[in-house]
Amino acid sequence: MAERLVVIGGDAAGMSAASQARRMRYIDDLEIIVFEQSAYVSFSACGEPYYVGGWVEDFDDLKVRTPEQFGAQGIDARIHHQVKAIDLAARTVTVHHPGGKEKVGYDQLLYATGATALRPPIEGMDLEGVHTLRTLDDASRLRSIAVSGVERAVVVGGGYLGLEVADAFHHLDIDTTVVTMMPTLLERTLDPDMSEFVADHVRSMGIQVETGFEVKCLAGSGGAVVGVGCDDRSFPADLVVLAVGSRPRIDLAEEAGIPLGATGAVAVDDHQRTRIEGVWSAGDCAEALHRISQRPVNLHLGTVANKTGRIAGINLGGGDAAFPGVLGTAITKVGDLEISSSGLTEWQAADAGIGAVAATIRSTTAAHYWPDSSPMHVKAIAEKPTGRLLGGQIVGGPGAGKRIDVFATAMWAGLPAHELAWTDLSYSPPFSGVWDSVHIAARKAGEKARE
Amino acid sequence: MAERLVVIGGDAAGMSAASQARRMRYIDDLEIIVFEQSAYVSFSACGEPYYVGGWVEDFDDLKVRTPEQFGAQGIDARIHHQVKAIDLAARTVTVHHPGGKEKVGYDQLLYATGATALRPPIEGMDLEGVHTLRTLDDASRLRSIAVSGVERAVVVGGGYLGLEVADAFHHLDIDTTVVTMMPTLLERTLDPDMSEFVADHVRSMGIQVETGFEVKCLAGSGGAVVGVGCDDRSFPADLVVLAVGSRPRIDLAEEAGIPLGATGAVAVDDHQRTRIEGVWSAGDCAEALHRISQRPVNLHLGTVANKTGRIAGINLGGGDAAFPGVLGTAITKVGDLEISSSGLTEWQAADAGIGAVAATIRSTTAAHYWPDSSPMHVKAIAEKPTGRLLGGQIVGGPGAGKRIDVFATAMWAGLPAHELAWTDLSYSPPFSGVWDSVHIAARKAGEKARE
Repeated sequence: MAERLVVIGGDAAGMSAASQARRMRYIDDLEIIVFEQSAYVSFSACGEPYYVGGWVEDFDDLKVRTPEQFGAQGIDARIHHQVKAIDLAARTVTVHHPGGKEKVGYDQLLYATGATALRPPIEGMDLEGVHTLRTLDDASRLRSIAVSGVERAVVVGGGYLGLEVADAFHHLDIDTTVVTMMPTLLERTLDPDMSEFVADHVRSMGIQVETGFEVKCLAGSGGAVVGVGCDDRSFPADLVVLAVGSRPRIDLAEEAGIPLGATGAVAVDDHQRTRIEGVWSAGDCAEALHRISQRPVNLHLGTVANKTGRIAGINLGGGDAAFPGVLGTAITKVGDLEISSSGLTEWQAADAGIGAVAATIRSTTAAHYWPDSSPMHVKAIAEKPTGRLLGGQIVGGPGAGKRIDVFATAMWAGLPAHELAWTDLSYSPPFSGVWDSVHIAARKAGEKARE
Repeated sequence: MAERLVVIGGDAAGMSAASQARRMRYIDDLEIIVFEQSAYVSFSACGEPYYVGGWVEDFDDLKVRTPEQFGAQGIDARIHHQVKAIDLAARTVTVHHPGGKEKVGYDQLLYATGATALRPPIEGMDLEGVHTLRTLDDASRLRSIAVSGVERAVVVGGGYLGLEVADAFHHLDIDTTVVTMMPTLLERTLDPDMSEFVADHVRSMGIQVETGFEVKCLAGSGGAVVGVGCDDRSFPADLVVLAVGSRPRIDLAEEAGIPLGATGAVAVDDHQRTRIEGVWSAGDCAEALHRISQRPVNLHLGTVANKTGRIAGINLGGGDAAFPGVLGTAITKVGDLEISSSGLTEWQAADAGIGAVAATIRSTTAAHYWPDSSPMHVKAIAEKPTGRLLGGQIVGGPGAGKRIDVFATAMWAGLPAHELAWTDLSYSPPFSGVWDSVHIAARKAGEKARE
């Protein structure tokens, strides 16, 4: 008889795992059932702000694959199926669905529930016009509202999602303000010297930025939101998006007794095994090892979800794969400003007990005389006195952001800053200076580290 | 008394070395004299096609620094000074200049004469309208002619420079044909499967491409060129640019008895020392070690000239630096098609006696649904059975080309293809798929290598 794999959660991690396991084991050897509570499997959460802003016009573009496509592949992906409980002893899950509820047994269980948008417990959260953006339904709803004559929007949160949503509203000619309780934008991925360039650019686009502002309540009138903040300082708004982060969906795991790690997400080993035999976890709900700090982290990134899902799938498929960890590499854009980072920021290095030095250079995305050249700031962070690369940060015009992958690859491979400074990177005037900005930042950080 | 460094050749390598040595040693310790035969020091040869095409409007933009700027830094850079002979025993050079000729003694000599455009010995080379593009004077002359009503241009040579010049002429609305005796374009840096995408694009722009055509003579009338080829097949032209490669300027070295290497360029060790005590060499005229083949190569790239010059300068300055070698990484664009490569091609790997496999994938520069997404082809080459990365090649729309730096960094650090496949590269829909195309190509090459 076939073994049965039950997957809880049909997005990036769950479906990557299911697909990979199916590639390796035939259906008469491994039955795969995926329970997804929403109407969608395998969608592009990262594309949602661009749908809201209208750059992506077709909602279906956000759906990577449909349940029917997975079905044709021998994966039984059931939407509108919500798992309500896991019984580890009996090896069953209890599922609620439109037709009722049932208990379904499993041999192997993959817990891939993802993450959910944080909804801070402040007054006014239930007012009309207050939204989060995480699911496809959120995206659909927010798009409809954003094009229905909204005049003033406030985005609470200055992280990647907050800036992307603000950019989307600005693109729709909505008067937009970003408020964050943090002293800077993007404080989790950029040091203050770098995030300042972002704030300057965002303001220059006409988006207001208010840092250090803690939202204690949302003001309403007639059941609809009219402003953010209720004290002396407040920002009028007929649309509010809360983009203050996300948390792993670990309720079911916690109730069932699947152990969590220090970050509050599901603890896994490098094979994506939880501490319960036969139970696996991957994606936003699971921890991952940070290659630089060597600490478990819980990052909610599509890249990590796809990779950890694939690792789980290889192992469920009979292979033997170890997830090599993360650097937290990420990229975004606001207007035509590209922003990217990888590894640790200066304060994260300090927090991890690593003595760090940094070099930030101002450069251009191409030869200074190239007509489309634009300013670019590149920061390299290195360990003292070894020169080990700890992190990179980039803020600049078109062509700047993807350079972060050079830092990521160098860090991944353990190439120290002073060696990255001599690597054979490509040059031509439309693309860079003869020494790439990454070279120069790495050289300066390497020199500081080894002084 | 101060030691005296004489530098022959005042472009990238020579001036990088001079600047670096000056940073490390004061003028009363090290006198630095640079002899440059042209009117310019430290210019951007790579920018010349873009000046010819009119993207770069100001000729002075191609001059990186002037003799006066170097003078202010304590470097005696003498233009219009041509070194005619080196006497290794007497430690002197014979210099011709507008004021006469003189013998100048040296303690240390840096031979940085660069390379010169190949002028094949075919009939008609001296006709009016036949040009090469290498020096700033060439660029100035070619720009003047190109905007003076040229109707039909033929570029002989399908390498980087040939395509850049053809792109420049096309940009000036000149009817342009590229002819090459090789069976494909860019045959030194792209395998045929990849160069085919380049040829398709170049043709789609309206530039004619004729491969496998050996130019045996240039046809003239009244002393001016009228066509390329004199047999049954020929191409009418009132302007011809020969871009068939360049060769290291080694005449002076050869006459003086400075040993050359197997490539025909000056042999140097990893400190840029020639085999003659007190004589150094760097840049286009010198060999460099290829990190993948572990063979000496002679590449004429601004990146290598700047790096080897700096290495020589550090060592001349009293430091101790070893040049870590090259991968031959290069990038260019034709229209809006970006083209880049690093490491060995398949045939170069075979030629180096390395068993190689390759994977070429067709992908897009951004998420497939992103409005500005465009096609991109990525090729990864790996050693069998180790998976060692040997090369990467990329052809695609805006944003494609600089991804080559990820291959270059991975190769540099010895990261095998199957490990590059899991690195934490950045993702957001405007920039890539959730698995970057580099990941996918590396994974497939790694799988093939280890089959």
